[in-house]
Amino acid sequence: MDAIAEGVTASSIHGVYCHELAQIETEGGPVLHMLRIDSPLYTGFGEIYFSTILPGAVKAWKLHRLQTQLFAVPSGLVEVVIHDARENSPSRGAVASFLLGRPHHYRLLRVPPLLWYGFTAKGYVPGILANCADIPHSPDESERLPKDSPRIPYSWNR
Amino acid sequence: MDAIAEGVTASSIHGVYCHELAQIETEGGPVLHMLRIDSPLYTGFGEIYFSTILPGAVKAWKLHRLQTQLFAVPSGLVEVVIHDARENSPSRGAVASFLLGRPHHYRLLRVPPLLWYGFTAKGYVPGILANCADIPHSPDESERLPKDSPRIPYSWNR
Repeated sequence: MDAIAEGVTASSIHGVYCHELAQIETEGGPVLHMLRIDSPLYTGFGEIYFSTILPGAVKAWKLHRLQTQLFAVPSGLVEVVIHDARENSPSRGAVASFLLGRPHHYRLLRVPPLLWYGFTAKGYVPGILANCADIPHSPDESERLPKDSPRIPYSWNR
Repeated sequence: MDAIAEGVTASSIHGVYCHELAQIETEGGPVLHMLRIDSPLYTGFGEIYFSTILPGAVKAWKLHRLQTQLFAVPSGLVEVVIHDARENSPSRGAVASFLLGRPHHYRLLRVPPLLWYGFTAKGYVPGILANCADIPHSPDESERLPKDSPRIPYSWNR
């Protein structure tokens, strides 16, 4: 990954960025940052929700035509896999995976529209993926493919 | 509690509201709503962060002069206690407590400025309190008291 702005790294997929997040130790348990309006990855607020992922479960594939997703995982360990099938993208055809979870992978991952993505929970406890998206969820602007779709060059059964 | 708008209930403390949140069963684990810009409790986006609370730990007391807090607990079980010391409040002097957690208490709790609040994690796993606040955190606009402050008529050791 290359640094493109203070604290922000670009990934091998064009337009996908990561930002390490603070975990502030306090008496009683740490405070975990996720997103402020002055974050370099902020593109607007539409909705915040959580996707719970049972250990070993796979949720895939999904694509948003308009919505930008911002992911962080405050509990458990989640692997997010992204596939770029965008025409004219410099990283067209690429697949990349990102581990999100505490304490070693506590980061914000920004996924722009038009990318296929999916995720799975690693380890023995459920993963909680927080998604702060810049427009509210609408079924009209998303598409799905089955997790074993031949259109996506990635196997979840490895 | 009295209903004041569709899905919203007022509490015994003036200006504190609750809204039940959807838990949508999906293959692999439920999707948990928290906040959309069209929620009746939305007052603006400033920051989203998580406070992790170890079992039995108490984080108290805190007051924000400007920030409105919106709490939900996607993991664990958290008790939020609020004390109203506002001059001229119709509920001045009141103390109220709210359980937040899945599956039976999965709700959004709105805490307006100028109220004292604190929280503790019940049960045997850490609680994760998500806080979506309408202005970003700033130490300038908050105050703290020790958890055993005589100024607040509530004992955490009960």
